[in-house]
Amino acid sequence: MTDQAFDLGDPEYRAAVVDLLGVLAYGELSAFERMGADAALAPVLDDEIHLASMAAAEWRHFQALRDRLVELGADPREAMEPFVAPLNDFHEHTAPGDWWEGLVKAYVGDGIATDFYREIAQFVDPRTRALVLEVCSDLGNSQFVVDRVTSAIDADPALGGRLALWGRRLVGEALSQAQRVAAQRDALSGLLVGGVDRPGADLAEIGRMLARLTDAHTGRMQSLGLGA
Amino acid sequence: MTDQAFDLGDPEYRAAVVDLLGVLAYGELSAFERMGADAALAPVLDDEIHLASMAAAEWRHFQALRDRLVELGADPREAMEPFVAPLNDFHEHTAPGDWWEGLVKAYVGDGIATDFYREIAQFVDPRTRALVLEVCSDLGNSQFVVDRVTSAIDADPALGGRLALWGRRLVGEALSQAQRVAAQRDALSGLLVGGVDRPGADLAEIGRMLARLTDAHTGRMQSLGLGA
Repeated sequence: MTDQAFDLGDPEYRAAVVDLLGVLAYGELSAFERMGADAALAPVLDDEIHLASMAAAEWRHFQALRDRLVELGADPREAMEPFVAPLNDFHEHTAPGDWWEGLVKAYVGDGIATDFYREIAQFVDPRTRALVLEVCSDLGNSQFVVDRVTSAIDADPALGGRLALWGRRLVGEALSQAQRVAAQRDALSGLLVGGVDRPGADLAEIGRMLARLTDAHTGRMQSLGLGA
Repeated sequence: MTDQAFDLGDPEYRAAVVDLLGVLAYGELSAFERMGADAALAPVLDDEIHLASMAAAEWRHFQALRDRLVELGADPREAMEPFVAPLNDFHEHTAPGDWWEGLVKAYVGDGIATDFYREIAQFVDPRTRALVLEVCSDLGNSQFVVDRVTSAIDADPALGGRLALWGRRLVGEALSQAQRVAAQRDALSGLLVGGVDRPGADLAEIGRMLARLTDAHTGRMQSLGLGA
Protein backbone atom coordinates (compact mmCIF):
# COMPACT_ATOMS: atom_id res chain seq x y z
CA MET A 1 0.00 0.00 0.00
CA THR A 2 1.52 3.34 -0.96
CA ASP A 3 0.85 6.34 1.26
CA GLN A 4 0.81 8.62 -1.79
CA ALA A 5 -2.56 7.05 -2.60
CA PHE A 6 -4.24 9.00 0.21
CA ASP A 7 -5.06 12.49 -0.97
CA LEU A 8 -6.84 14.84 1.43
CA GLY A 9 -7.56 17.03 -1.62
CA ASP A 10 -9.92 14.27 -2.83
CA PRO A 11 -13.35 15.31 -1.43
CA GLU A 12 -14.54 11.74 -0.96
CA TYR A 13 -11.43 10.71 0.96
CA ARG A 14 -11.40 13.90 3.00
CA ALA A 15 -15.07 13.37 3.95
CA ALA A 16 -14.20 9.86 5.06
CA VAL A 17 -11.32 11.06 7.25
CA VAL A 18 -13.50 13.79 8.79
CA ASP A 19 -16.16 11.15 9.49
CA LEU A 20 -13.59 8.85 11.07
CA LEU A 21 -12.16 11.59 13.30
CA GLY A 22 -15.71 12.77 14.09
CA VAL A 23 -16.97 9.38 15.22
CA LEU A 24 -13.80 8.83 17.24
CA ALA A 25 -14.05 12.29 18.85
CA TYR A 26 -17.65 11.85 19.93
CA GLY A 27 -16.82 8.29 20.99
CA GLU A 28 -14.09 9.64 23.28
CA LEU A 29 -16.30 12.44 24.60
CA SER A 30 -19.19 10.12 25.41
CA ALA A 31 -16.84 7.49 26.88
CA PHE A 32 -15.35 10.24 29.08
CA GLU A 33 -18.79 11.19 30.37
CA ARG A 34 -20.07 7.67 30.95
CA MET A 35 -16.86 6.19 32.35
CA GLY A 36 -16.54 9.06 34.82
CA ALA A 37 -20.06 8.33 36.05
CA ASP A 38 -19.29 4.60 36.26
CA ALA A 39 -16.24 5.37 38.45
CA ALA A 40 -18.66 6.62 41.13
CA LEU A 41 -19.92 3.02 41.43
CA ALA A 42 -16.52 1.73 42.63
CA PRO A 43 -16.53 -0.22 45.92
CA VAL A 44 -13.18 1.26 47.02
CA LEU A 45 -11.54 4.64 46.50
CA ASP A 46 -8.40 3.35 44.73
CA ASP A 47 -10.52 1.67 42.08
CA GLU A 48 -12.69 4.77 41.74
CA ILE A 49 -9.57 6.85 41.07
CA HIS A 50 -8.29 4.30 38.55
CA LEU A 51 -11.47 4.30 36.46
CA ALA A 52 -11.71 8.10 36.74
CA SER A 53 -8.13 8.37 35.42
CA MET A 54 -9.14 6.19 32.45
CA ALA A 55 -12.03 8.60 31.83
CA ALA A 56 -9.67 11.60 32.03
CA ALA A 57 -7.46 9.96 29.37
CA GLU A 58 -10.49 9.84 27.05
CA TRP A 59 -10.83 13.61 27.43
CA ARG A 60 -7.25 14.13 26.27
CA HIS A 61 -7.94 11.88 23.28
CA PHE A 62 -11.04 13.92 22.50
CA GLN A 63 -8.96 17.09 22.52
CA ALA A 64 -6.35 15.62 20.15
CA LEU A 65 -9.05 14.55 17.70
CA ARG A 66 -10.82 17.91 17.88
CA ASP A 67 -7.54 19.74 17.29
CA ARG A 68 -6.84 17.62 14.22
CA LEU A 69 -10.33 18.28 12.82
CA VAL A 70 -9.74 22.03 13.23
CA GLU A 71 -6.35 21.66 11.54
CA LEU A 72 -8.06 19.96 8.58
CA GLY A 73 -10.40 22.96 8.30
CA ALA A 74 -13.41 20.93 9.48
CA ASP A 75 -15.95 22.06 12.09
CA PRO A 76 -15.60 19.55 14.94
CA ARG A 77 -19.24 19.95 15.93
CA GLU A 78 -20.44 19.20 12.39
CA ALA A 79 -18.05 16.27 12.16
CA MET A 80 -19.35 14.72 15.40
CA GLU A 81 -23.05 15.48 14.96
CA PRO A 82 -23.99 12.45 12.80
CA PHE A 83 -22.64 10.12 15.48
CA VAL A 84 -24.25 11.68 18.55
CA ALA A 85 -27.52 9.74 18.34
CA PRO A 86 -26.04 6.27 17.63
CA LEU A 87 -23.37 6.61 20.34
CA ASN A 88 -25.82 7.96 22.91
CA ASP A 89 -28.21 5.11 22.04
CA PHE A 90 -25.38 2.65 22.58
CA HIS A 91 -24.62 4.11 26.01
CA GLU A 92 -28.28 4.30 27.02
CA HIS A 93 -28.80 0.66 26.05
CA THR A 94 -25.67 -0.37 27.96
CA ALA A 95 -25.86 1.73 31.14
CA PRO A 96 -24.04 -0.46 33.71
CA GLY A 97 -26.19 -1.66 36.60
CA ASP A 98 -23.20 -1.90 38.90
CA TRP A 99 -19.43 -1.46 39.16
CA TRP A 100 -18.66 -4.85 37.55
CA GLU A 101 -20.77 -4.19 34.50
CA GLY A 102 -19.04 -0.80 34.20
CA LEU A 103 -15.60 -2.42 34.32
CA VAL A 104 -16.51 -5.04 31.71
CA LYS A 105 -17.91 -2.29 29.50
CA ALA A 106 -14.68 -0.27 29.81
CA TYR A 107 -12.68 -3.32 28.71
CA VAL A 108 -14.86 -5.41 26.39
CA GLY A 109 -16.94 -2.59 24.90
CA ASP A 110 -14.02 -0.23 24.38
CA GLY A 111 -11.88 -3.16 23.24
CA ILE A 112 -14.04 -4.15 20.31
CA ALA A 113 -14.45 -0.50 19.26
CA THR A 114 -10.74 0.32 19.39
CA ASP A 115 -9.87 -2.94 17.56
CA PHE A 116 -12.25 -1.91 14.81
CA TYR A 117 -10.78 1.59 14.51
CA ARG A 118 -7.26 0.16 14.45
CA GLU A 119 -8.28 -2.01 11.50
CA ILE A 120 -9.73 1.04 9.72
CA ALA A 121 -6.47 2.89 10.42
CA GLN A 122 -4.76 0.66 7.84
CA PHE A 123 -6.75 2.42 5.12
CA VAL A 124 -5.85 6.05 5.88
CA ASP A 125 -2.86 8.36 5.47
CA PRO A 126 0.08 7.99 7.92
CA ARG A 127 -0.72 11.10 9.97
CA THR A 128 -4.38 10.12 10.49
CA ARG A 129 -3.27 6.55 11.17
CA ALA A 130 -0.83 7.64 13.89
CA LEU A 131 -3.54 9.69 15.61
CA VAL A 132 -6.10 6.86 15.45
CA LEU A 133 -3.58 4.37 16.84
CA GLU A 134 -2.64 6.82 19.60
CA VAL A 135 -6.20 7.41 20.81
CA CYS A 136 -6.95 3.69 20.54
CA SER A 137 -3.92 2.56 22.56
CA ASP A 138 -4.64 0.45 25.64
CA LEU A 139 -2.76 2.57 28.23
CA GLY A 140 -2.27 -0.59 30.33
CA ASN A 141 -5.78 -0.58 31.74
CA SER A 142 -6.73 -4.09 30.64
CA GLN A 143 -4.78 -5.70 33.46
CA PHE A 144 -6.61 -3.57 36.01
CA VAL A 145 -10.01 -4.73 34.75
CA VAL A 146 -8.92 -8.38 34.41
CA ASP A 147 -7.56 -8.41 38.01
CA ARG A 148 -10.67 -6.88 39.54
CA VAL A 149 -13.22 -8.89 37.56
CA THR A 150 -11.54 -12.30 37.95
CA SER A 151 -11.19 -11.78 41.72
CA ALA A 152 -14.83 -10.79 41.99
CA ILE A 153 -15.95 -13.89 40.04
CA ASP A 154 -13.75 -16.10 42.25
CA ALA A 155 -15.56 -14.69 45.27
CA ASP A 156 -19.01 -14.92 43.67
CA PRO A 157 -19.23 -17.42 40.78
CA ALA A 158 -22.82 -16.38 39.95
CA LEU A 159 -21.41 -13.01 38.87
CA GLY A 160 -19.60 -14.80 36.02
CA GLY A 161 -22.86 -15.92 34.42
CA ARG A 162 -24.34 -12.46 34.63
CA LEU A 163 -21.22 -10.78 33.18
CA ALA A 164 -21.01 -13.31 30.32
CA LEU A 165 -24.54 -12.30 29.28
CA TRP A 166 -23.56 -8.63 29.73
CA GLY A 167 -20.55 -9.07 27.41
CA ARG A 168 -22.80 -10.50 24.71
CA ARG A 169 -25.21 -7.62 25.10
CA LEU A 170 -22.36 -5.09 24.75
CA VAL A 171 -21.25 -6.66 21.47
CA GLY A 172 -24.81 -6.92 20.17
CA GLU A 173 -25.48 -3.24 20.88
CA ALA A 174 -22.10 -2.20 19.41
CA LEU A 175 -22.77 -4.12 16.17
CA SER A 176 -26.29 -2.74 15.94
CA GLN A 177 -25.09 0.88 16.22
CA ALA A 178 -22.11 0.24 13.91
CA GLN A 179 -24.49 -1.05 11.22
CA ARG A 180 -26.64 2.05 11.65
CA VAL A 181 -23.59 4.29 11.20
CA ALA A 182 -22.32 2.31 8.19
CA ALA A 183 -25.73 2.54 6.50
CA GLN A 184 -25.83 6.32 6.88
CA ARG A 185 -22.22 7.28 6.22
CA ASP A 186 -21.19 6.20 2.74
CA ALA A 187 -17.83 7.98 2.86
CA LEU A 188 -16.85 6.26 6.11
CA SER A 189 -17.79 2.79 4.93
CA GLY A 190 -16.07 3.61 1.65
CA LEU A 191 -12.75 3.77 3.52
CA LEU A 192 -12.83 0.02 3.95
CA VAL A 193 -13.52 -0.82 0.32
CA GLY A 194 -11.20 1.88 -1.05
CA GLY A 195 -11.69 4.04 -4.14
CA VAL A 196 -10.21 4.72 -7.54
CA ASP A 197 -6.42 4.64 -6.94
CA ARG A 198 -7.01 4.27 -3.19
CA PRO A 199 -6.34 0.95 -1.53
CA GLY A 200 -9.12 -0.88 0.29
CA ALA A 201 -10.02 -4.35 1.45
CA ASP A 202 -11.53 -7.02 -0.78
CA LEU A 203 -14.19 -9.39 0.51
CA ALA A 204 -11.64 -11.96 1.67
CA GLU A 205 -9.72 -9.31 3.61
CA ILE A 206 -12.94 -8.05 5.24
CA GLY A 207 -13.71 -11.63 6.24
CA ARG A 208 -10.26 -11.97 7.84
CA MET A 209 -10.75 -8.64 9.61
CA LEU A 210 -14.07 -9.78 11.11
CA ALA A 211 -12.38 -13.01 12.21
CA ARG A 212 -9.61 -11.00 13.93
CA LEU A 213 -12.18 -8.79 15.71
CA THR A 214 -14.14 -11.84 16.87
CA ASP A 215 -10.99 -13.63 18.05
CA ALA A 216 -9.79 -10.61 20.01
CA HIS A 217 -13.23 -10.24 21.64
CA THR A 218 -13.25 -13.93 22.58
CA GLY A 219 -9.75 -13.51 24.01
CA ARG A 220 -10.84 -10.60 26.20
CA MET A 221 -13.87 -12.53 27.50
CA GLN A 222 -11.64 -15.54 28.22
CA SER A 223 -9.13 -13.39 30.09
CA LEU A 224 -12.06 -12.43 32.35
CA GLY A 225 -12.91 -16.12 32.76
CA LEU A 226 -16.06 -15.70 30.65
CA GLY A 227 -17.41 -17.47 27.56
CA ALA A 228 -17.91 -15.11 24.60
CA MET B 1 -1.92 37.52 60.53
CA THR B 2 1.66 36.22 60.38
CA ASP B 3 2.41 33.28 58.14
CA GLN B 4 5.02 32.03 60.60
CA ALA B 5 2.10 31.03 62.81
CA PHE B 6 1.31 28.06 60.55
CA ASP B 7 3.58 25.16 61.39
CA LEU B 8 3.14 21.91 59.47
CA GLY B 9 5.25 20.31 62.22
CA ASP B 10 2.33 20.88 64.62
CA PRO B 11 0.34 17.60 64.43
CA GLU B 12 -3.02 19.30 64.97
CA TYR B 13 -2.41 21.87 62.22
CA ARG B 14 -0.99 19.28 59.85
CA ALA B 15 -4.05 17.03 60.39
CA ALA B 16 -6.27 20.00 59.57
CA VAL B 17 -4.41 20.75 56.32
CA VAL B 18 -4.53 17.07 55.30
CA ASP B 19 -8.28 17.09 56.02
CA LEU B 20 -8.75 20.25 53.99
CA LEU B 21 -6.79 18.90 51.00
CA GLY B 22 -8.57 15.53 51.39
CA VAL B 23 -12.08 16.96 51.32
CA LEU B 24 -11.15 19.20 48.40
CA ALA B 25 -9.55 16.29 46.49
CA TYR B 26 -12.57 14.02 46.87
CA GLY B 27 -14.81 17.00 46.13
CA GLU B 28 -12.99 17.52 42.83
CA LEU B 29 -12.99 13.80 42.00
CA SER B 30 -16.71 13.41 42.65
CA ALA B 31 -17.52 16.68 40.84
CA PHE B 32 -15.49 15.38 37.87
CA GLU B 33 -17.55 12.17 37.80
CA ARG B 34 -20.95 13.78 38.25
CA MET B 35 -20.41 16.80 36.01
CA GLY B 36 -19.16 14.56 33.19
CA ALA B 37 -22.36 12.52 33.45
CA ASP B 38 -24.45 15.72 33.54
CA ALA B 39 -22.78 16.88 30.29
CA ALA B 40 -24.46 13.96 28.54
CA LEU B 41 -27.82 15.66 29.24
CA ALA B 42 -26.95 18.71 27.11
CA PRO B 43 -29.45 19.62 24.38
CA VAL B 44 -26.71 20.64 21.91
CA LEU B 45 -23.20 19.39 21.29
CA ASP B 46 -21.40 22.70 21.95
CA ASP B 47 -22.92 22.88 25.44
CA GLU B 48 -22.11 19.23 26.07
CA ILE B 49 -18.46 19.93 25.23
CA HIS B 50 -18.44 23.01 27.46
CA LEU B 51 -19.71 21.18 30.55
CA ALA B 52 -17.40 18.23 29.80
CA SER B 53 -14.44 20.64 29.68
CA MET B 54 -15.48 21.99 33.09
CA ALA B 55 -15.48 18.37 34.37
CA ALA B 56 -12.02 17.78 32.88
CA ALA B 57 -10.73 20.85 34.76
CA GLU B 58 -11.92 19.23 38.01
CA TRP B 59 -9.73 16.21 37.23
CA ARG B 60 -6.65 18.45 36.91
CA HIS B 61 -7.53 20.05 40.25
CA PHE B 62 -7.87 16.61 41.79
CA GLN B 63 -4.39 15.71 40.53
CA ALA B 64 -2.84 18.88 41.97
CA LEU B 65 -4.40 18.21 45.38
CA ARG B 66 -3.35 14.56 45.34
CA ASP B 67 0.21 15.53 44.42
CA ARG B 68 0.35 17.99 47.31
CA LEU B 69 -0.92 15.37 49.78
CA VAL B 70 1.82 12.99 48.62
CA GLU B 71 4.37 15.79 48.99
CA LEU B 72 3.21 16.31 52.59
CA GLY B 73 3.82 12.60 53.24
CA ALA B 74 0.10 11.87 53.56
CA ASP B 75 -1.72 8.95 51.93
CA PRO B 76 -4.24 10.59 49.55
CA ARG B 77 -6.67 7.69 49.91
CA GLU B 78 -6.66 7.93 53.70
CA ALA B 79 -7.01 11.71 53.50
CA MET B 80 -10.05 11.48 51.21
CA GLU B 81 -11.76 8.48 52.85
CA PRO B 82 -13.63 10.39 55.65
CA PHE B 83 -15.31 12.59 53.03
CA VAL B 84 -16.41 9.91 50.57
CA ALA B 85 -19.75 9.13 52.23
CA PRO B 86 -20.88 12.74 52.88
CA LEU B 87 -19.91 13.89 49.36
CA ASN B 88 -21.52 10.88 47.69
CA ASP B 89 -24.65 11.45 49.77
CA PHE B 90 -24.69 15.07 48.62
CA HIS B 91 -24.47 14.00 44.98
CA GLU B 92 -27.06 11.26 45.37
CA HIS B 93 -29.50 13.69 46.98
CA THR B 94 -28.87 16.26 44.25
CA ALA B 95 -28.74 14.14 41.08
CA PRO B 96 -29.98 16.55 38.38
CA GLY B 97 -33.23 15.54 36.70
CA ASP B 98 -32.32 17.38 33.51
CA TRP B 99 -29.70 19.57 31.84
CA TRP B 100 -30.89 22.79 33.55
CA GLU B 101 -30.68 21.34 37.02
CA GLY B 102 -27.20 20.10 36.16
CA LEU B 103 -26.11 23.57 35.02
CA VAL B 104 -27.50 25.24 38.15
CA LYS B 105 -25.75 22.64 40.29
CA ALA B 106 -22.43 23.30 38.52
CA TYR B 107 -22.78 27.03 39.25
CA VAL B 108 -24.75 27.43 42.50
CA GLY B 109 -23.64 24.23 44.23
CA ASP B 110 -19.99 24.54 43.26
CA GLY B 111 -20.17 28.27 43.98
CA ILE B 112 -21.15 27.96 47.61
CA ALA B 113 -18.59 25.20 48.18
CA THR B 114 -15.69 27.11 46.59
CA ASP B 115 -16.66 30.32 48.43
CA PHE B 116 -16.50 28.39 51.69
CA TYR B 117 -13.08 26.88 50.89
CA ARG B 118 -11.77 30.30 49.87
CA GLU B 119 -12.81 31.61 53.30
CA ILE B 120 -11.04 28.70 55.00
CA ALA B 121 -7.95 29.46 52.89
CA GLN B 122 -7.42 32.61 54.96
CA PHE B 123 -6.52 30.38 57.94
CA VAL B 124 -3.79 28.25 56.36
CA ASP B 125 -0.15 28.68 55.29
CA PRO B 126 0.58 30.57 52.04
CA ARG B 127 1.45 27.47 49.98
CA THR B 128 -1.76 25.65 50.99
CA ARG B 129 -3.70 28.87 50.49
CA ALA B 130 -2.38 29.30 46.94
CA LEU B 131 -3.37 25.74 46.04
CA VAL B 132 -6.86 26.09 47.53
CA LEU B 133 -7.43 29.38 45.70
CA GLU B 134 -6.17 27.82 42.46
CA VAL B 135 -8.51 24.82 42.55
CA CYS B 136 -11.42 27.05 43.64
CA SER B 137 -10.97 29.59 40.85
CA ASP B 138 -13.97 30.18 38.59
CA LEU B 139 -12.29 29.53 35.21
CA GLY B 140 -14.85 31.82 33.58
CA ASN B 141 -17.62 29.25 33.55
CA SER B 142 -20.19 31.30 35.43
CA GLN B 143 -21.07 33.36 32.36
CA PHE B 144 -21.73 30.21 30.37
CA VAL B 145 -24.24 28.96 32.95
CA VAL B 146 -25.87 32.38 33.41
CA ASP B 147 -26.32 32.78 29.62
CA ARG B 148 -27.85 29.36 29.11
CA VAL B 149 -30.13 29.37 32.17
CA THR B 150 -31.49 32.91 31.72
CA SER B 151 -32.27 32.20 28.03
CA ALA B 152 -34.06 29.00 28.97
CA ILE B 153 -36.15 30.78 31.63
CA ASP B 154 -37.03 33.52 29.12
CA ALA B 155 -38.36 30.85 26.80
CA ASP B 156 -40.15 28.91 29.57
CA PRO B 157 -40.91 31.02 32.67
CA ALA B 158 -42.21 27.97 34.60
CA LEU B 159 -38.65 26.65 34.56
CA GLY B 160 -37.64 29.57 36.80
CA GLY B 161 -39.90 28.43 39.63
CA ARG B 162 -38.59 24.90 39.46
CA LEU B 163 -34.93 26.01 39.39
CA ALA B 164 -35.46 28.41 42.33
CA LEU B 165 -36.65 25.45 44.42
CA TRP B 166 -33.74 23.40 43.11
CA GLY B 167 -31.25 26.08 44.19
CA ARG B 168 -32.66 26.00 47.73
CA ARG B 169 -32.42 22.24 47.81
CA LEU B 170 -28.76 22.38 46.70
CA VAL B 171 -27.90 24.75 49.54
CA GLY B 172 -29.88 22.74 52.08
CA GLU B 173 -28.09 19.53 51.12
CA ALA B 174 -24.70 21.25 51.07
CA LEU B 175 -25.23 22.68 54.57
CA SER B 176 -26.48 19.36 55.88
CA GLN B 177 -23.38 17.50 54.64
CA ALA B 178 -21.05 20.32 55.76
CA GLN B 179 -22.47 20.04 59.31
CA ARG B 180 -21.93 16.28 59.22
CA VAL B 181 -18.29 16.78 58.19
CA ALA B 182 -17.70 19.51 60.78
CA ALA B 183 -19.14 17.32 63.55
CA GLN B 184 -16.80 14.46 62.66
CA ARG B 185 -13.58 16.28 61.83
CA ASP B 186 -12.37 18.26 64.81
CA ALA B 187 -9.06 19.22 63.20
CA LEU B 188 -10.76 20.65 60.12
CA SER B 189 -13.30 22.71 62.08
CA GLY B 190 -10.41 23.76 64.34
CA LEU B 191 -8.86 25.61 61.38
CA LEU B 192 -11.62 28.21 61.60
CA VAL B 193 -11.28 28.89 65.32
CA GLY B 194 -7.49 28.71 65.29
CA GLY B 195 -5.21 27.27 67.97
CA VAL B 196 -2.55 28.28 70.47
CA ASP B 197 -0.40 30.82 68.54
CA ARG B 198 -2.41 30.13 65.38
CA PRO B 199 -4.82 32.76 64.10
CA GLY B 200 -8.49 31.91 63.73
CA ALA B 201 -11.86 33.63 63.53
CA ASP B 202 -13.83 34.85 66.53
CA LEU B 203 -17.61 34.57 66.65
CA ALA B 204 -18.13 37.98 65.05
CA GLU B 205 -15.81 37.09 62.17
CA ILE B 206 -17.61 33.76 61.65
CA GLY B 207 -20.88 35.69 61.54
CA ARG B 208 -19.47 38.00 58.87
CA MET B 209 -18.19 35.01 56.91
CA LEU B 210 -21.64 33.38 56.90
CA ALA B 211 -23.11 36.70 55.77
CA ARG B 212 -20.60 36.86 52.90
CA LEU B 213 -21.42 33.27 51.86
CA THR B 214 -25.15 33.98 51.96
CA ASP B 215 -24.78 37.22 50.00
CA ALA B 216 -22.68 35.55 47.31
CA HIS B 217 -25.21 32.73 47.00
CA THR B 218 -28.06 35.23 46.70
CA GLY B 219 -26.05 37.08 44.05
CA ARG B 220 -25.61 33.91 42.00
CA MET B 221 -29.31 33.08 42.20
CA GLN B 222 -30.16 36.67 41.16
CA SER B 223 -27.79 36.52 38.21
CA LEU B 224 -29.86 33.49 37.08
CA GLY B 225 -33.02 35.54 37.57
CA LEU B 226 -34.01 33.41 40.57
CA GLY B 227 -34.95 34.23 44.18
CA ALA B 228 -32.61 32.62 46.72
